[in-house]
Amino acid sequence: MSITTSCRFRHAALIGKYQARGIRPVLEDVAHTLSRTGVDVSVEVETALNTGLADYPSLTLDQIGRECDVAVVVGGDGTMLAIARELCKYNVPLIGINQGRLGFITDIQQRDVAVALPQILSGHYEEESRSVLEGAVLRPRREGGLETIYEDYAINEVVVSRGATASMVELRAEVDGLFVANYRADGLIVASPTGSTAYALSAGGPILHPGLNGWVMVPIASHTLSNRPIVVPDTGTIDIEIVAGKDASMNFDMQSLASLLHGDRVTVRRSPHRVRFLHPQGWNYYATLRRKMRWNEGVS
Amino acid sequence: MSITTSCRFRHAALIGKYQARGIRPVLEDVAHTLSRTGVDVSVEVETALNTGLADYPSLTLDQIGRECDVAVVVGGDGTMLAIARELCKYNVPLIGINQGRLGFITDIQQRDVAVALPQILSGHYEEESRSVLEGAVLRPRREGGLETIYEDYAINEVVVSRGATASMVELRAEVDGLFVANYRADGLIVASPTGSTAYALSAGGPILHPGLNGWVMVPIASHTLSNRPIVVPDTGTIDIEIVAGKDASMNFDMQSLASLLHGDRVTVRRSPHRVRFLHPQGWNYYATLRRKMRWNEGVS
Amino acid sequence: MSITTSCRFRHAALIGKYQARGIRPVLEDVAHTLSRTGVDVSVEVETALNTGLADYPSLTLDQIGRECDVAVVVGGDGTMLAIARELCKYNVPLIGINQGRLGFITDIQQRDVAVALPQILSGHYEEESRSVLEGAVLRPRREGGLETIYEDYAINEVVVSRGATASMVELRAEVDGLFVANYRADGLIVASPTGSTAYALSAGGPILHPGLNGWVMVPIASHTLSNRPIVVPDTGTIDIEIVAGKDASMNFDMQSLASLLHGDRVTVRRSPHRVRFLHPQGWNYYATLRRKMRWNEGVS
Amino acid sequence: MSITTSCRFRHAALIGKYQARGIRPVLEDVAHTLSRTGVDVSVEVETALNTGLADYPSLTLDQIGRECDVAVVVGGDGTMLAIARELCKYNVPLIGINQGRLGFITDIQQRDVAVALPQILSGHYEEESRSVLEGAVLRPRREGGLETIYEDYAINEVVVSRGATASMVELRAEVDGLFVANYRADGLIVASPTGSTAYALSAGGPILHPGLNGWVMVPIASHTLSNRPIVVPDTGTIDIEIVAGKDASMNFDMQSLASLLHGDRVTVRRSPHRVRFLHPQGWNYYATLRRKMRWNEGVS
Repeated sequence: MSITTSCRFRHAALIGKYQARGIRPVLEDVAHTLSRTGVDVSVEVETALNTGLADYPSLTLDQIGRECDVAVVVGGDGTMLAIARELCKYNVPLIGINQGRLGFITDIQQRDVAVALPQILSGHYEEESRSVLEGAVLRPRREGGLETIYEDYAINEVVVSRGATASMVELRAEVDGLFVANYRADGLIVASPTGSTAYALSAGGPILHPGLNGWVMVPIASHTLSNRPIVVPDTGTIDIEIVAGKDASMNFDMQSLASLLHGDRVTVRRSPHRVRFLHPQGWNYYATLRRKMRWNEGVS
Repeated sequence: MSITTSCRFRHAALIGKYQARGIRPVLEDVAHTLSRTGVDVSVEVETALNTGLADYPSLTLDQIGRECDVAVVVGGDGTMLAIARELCKYNVPLIGINQGRLGFITDIQQRDVAVALPQILSGHYEEESRSVLEGAVLRPRREGGLETIYEDYAINEVVVSRGATASMVELRAEVDGLFVANYRADGLIVASPTGSTAYALSAGGPILHPGLNGWVMVPIASHTLSNRPIVVPDTGTIDIEIVAGKDASMNFDMQSLASLLHGDRVTVRRSPHRVRFLHPQGWNYYATLRRKMRWNEGVS
Repeated sequence: MSITTSCRFRHAALIGKYQARGIRPVLEDVAHTLSRTGVDVSVEVETALNTGLADYPSLTLDQIGRECDVAVVVGGDGTMLAIARELCKYNVPLIGINQGRLGFITDIQQRDVAVALPQILSGHYEEESRSVLEGAVLRPRREGGLETIYEDYAINEVVVSRGATASMVELRAEVDGLFVANYRADGLIVASPTGSTAYALSAGGPILHPGLNGWVMVPIASHTLSNRPIVVPDTGTIDIEIVAGKDASMNFDMQSLASLLHGDRVTVRRSPHRVRFLHPQGWNYYATLRRKMRWNEGVS
Repeated sequence: MSITTSCRFRHAALIGKYQARGIRPVLEDVAHTLSRTGVDVSVEVETALNTGLADYPSLTLDQIGRECDVAVVVGGDGTMLAIARELCKYNVPLIGINQGRLGFITDIQQRDVAVALPQILSGHYEEESRSVLEGAVLRPRREGGLETIYEDYAINEVVVSRGATASMVELRAEVDGLFVANYRADGLIVASPTGSTAYALSAGGPILHPGLNGWVMVPIASHTLSNRPIVVPDTGTIDIEIVAGKDASMNFDMQSLASLLHGDRVTVRRSPHRVRFLHPQGWNYYATLRRKMRWNEGVS
């Protein structure tokens, strides 16, 4: 899972948390550090606008994807998810800097930037790649056939869930064309290993190691108690049909949303893209897990 | 929990599942049986309209509450919940007749009506009473203080839950004025013993025996894994404040619904009313539980 | 649940953790504090022997129960459970002093003794009483009938569990003579509210508020997934019959143990005794719960 | 996962449930059917002795492994597990015939033998292979180093668990030399996909599809609530050290057992062997899962 190489980077992008003005000092600090290590620095255009940070060229996310060979993201896991979803198709490695508590995937603290960033940029890092989900909504056409009305990537999970005014949704799930189960529940989560420690965990799912070639289907508050989470190989396609329930919707990483109708079919498959994270040397998935899950401490 | 008395009934109400035309034959059958046992029969007005059953006087639910001394409900547990919520303030005992699978609280099958109903009406029954929840939404007034903007009874549960576009709701719960927990979750269920085998069970709650003077607070998909269900005495008041989360709503038995705003306070307490169910002789809570939970059978 | 009275105490017993030599300085400190407040101090005989603390009269636990009007226990929750099980029949109130992390029921830290103890002894405390379980093993006699071969109190829980060489135990449970379920599992826990945050919680049970007149039956790793925890009123009797499984045993608070044979019947009922805990003023069950369950903090 | 080939078989072994005399008629029936399809039939020696079935040559399990090219097992999942554990190193495909309820891995009913067996033997089947665990106990030698004192295969799971007189066991788990967690629990299960629907499921684990290259570590009644099941790639080695707890033991498929001492190290890795099951054409993992988990039916 982790390989240390000695490559170097030429052009780093700096991306900040959405609409967070207060992070300008941190961004400046990171930008200085990046510059000192000899890489060209560009700032994501929205980040530049929101913070007034105008000393560096600004690029759109797509430009960053095409032109930069590393992106430094300042924010929490939520920010990282949003950026990773946008950049995954460009294969740009990501480095996460967290201002508050360390996250699962943003694991450099602000105060460690001056030491950790130059080390990583000089090639001393642990690289780790995470699988990406691709989800789509297919809607029956009047004239027959299905039409893709929405599609997006998800780093954590794709969720199909009931509307606020419905008591449940009924979902028919298939894997590779084989009928798995009819779920009467608040919803159904399809989570990657990265997402297994997020919403899927709250709903009763297991933790999946990022090196596992699988994902997990976790029903939310299922009427049938034996409808337990199922971990399936991530090589297949998961199809979910909306059988019953008003105002159902589908979301990607709890961030982008599509409304669903009866008869809509949601398709989830593994993306050909993967997200690449660069961690400081010595980084270790289980150590992060123990810290985030508080396994080192007390009773609960 | 169960007491057999030898009282008799004079005036029975007959109430059918909402908008279910097909149940007319069953209703006629039940009405005949009731008449034969010597009680006066009235039919709930909506039931009469929906089914065209015009041979009996029709009464509104409020009239039934005031004038009848027993109500026979034909439908499933959902119908029974709706009727019980309306009639609980009148203390009228309820008898449930189920056309399909037996429910938790509708436990006479259609084919057993001719035998079971006369027995019950002649005083040979197990009477059981269930606690009722009273919930209200209090909203801050501009001029200060709180205003009750919605209130209702619930037989099963009161649920506060997130809107479809929010990733979670944050709820601050107090019991008798003491701070219990801040829940970041899909929602929070306060369930009576009757409701403990419904939605609360799906969300991970325990089963509460109907004789228990308590209810259970069950968070739905809580971010904090140690936020386990808590069973508290039902003598106190539960206050839930909406701290964060868009489009939150409150529902009663998954049937009636109120929209919530930040700062709204939901109050749940035990109603002075109780629901009275009349069961055939030999009825037994645990036997119903085993049948509904499928404990008699195999692996899962 | 909490009442502040203004009574005073005359004779305090001091009891230390079993075989913990190192606690002599703490005990001396506590004994001085007790003496200064004007109460007579006796030391439990084993505690005196283990620590060499010979400046005070020593009493057996039974003598303490009969002669003292308060007992101060120095140790963790495990020590308190053991002492409470011995003293519960004497109705002596208990005060718990914890050297390490605060426990659920030992809630004065060593450093707070000088302030907290005199306040409590002068009558400024929150008194709380907890229900006690009484368990017995009844074995069929050759000549017919059943013989009680073991009985004890439990503050937390009574557990019937499989032997190490068996893959499971099969247990038939009845409440008040009514058949509840046949459990094929690693075992079955009957926990009081006090025990609901101990082993029962690990096995999937809910938290029960100490004011609840109920207890919970939690199967351990049940084969049948729908065999969920059941909370029943604590006024009844729970009977558990060993139907199958080698080397089953029964334990009380995970401390005292009885071996079981096929056909043995375990009976659990509420004891007429209760345990009385004295807490510092301002003590609050939910605050203790939040601290022990780490609800104030992060993700997990 | 399923491939239909058109190969044929020459020499079938017939193996019956351990010490089950009553199965002689079934075995005779199966033997006749096998003979009629033109394969040579041998009977496992213990099966022959127990049932008196002397019309066929008898072979030991090792001889069967070396000489037969298919083995027909009559019994339930437990019998199949025991035989598969013995035969896995020989790569002999297994066919399971169940006298009672269909199992997860014994999926031909006695009454279907006459039709299903000839079809399978003529090459019309779904072949499926399942991963096998290899577990060993390493004990420190006085003179230094570790000595392997026990090793075995497991088809379902390897379990390390506490003794009957201990309140818990403390286990330190590593994966590929990386520290994962310190479990204070009743025990720890390492389950294959095949075992994920057995004991691991009872202890709260997820279902793993047999095509998944992973296995799951499930703590049993863990003190730390956030110690959730973890699914890891099955390419690595899991090491479990016994840190604390009396009378701990290790078992394989709940069938073979080794006692453990403090300091013992349990090692689990994937075996180079796999178990091959032959199912009737049209067999489908999810259909078996739905039937065994009762997903087609009602509420619970």
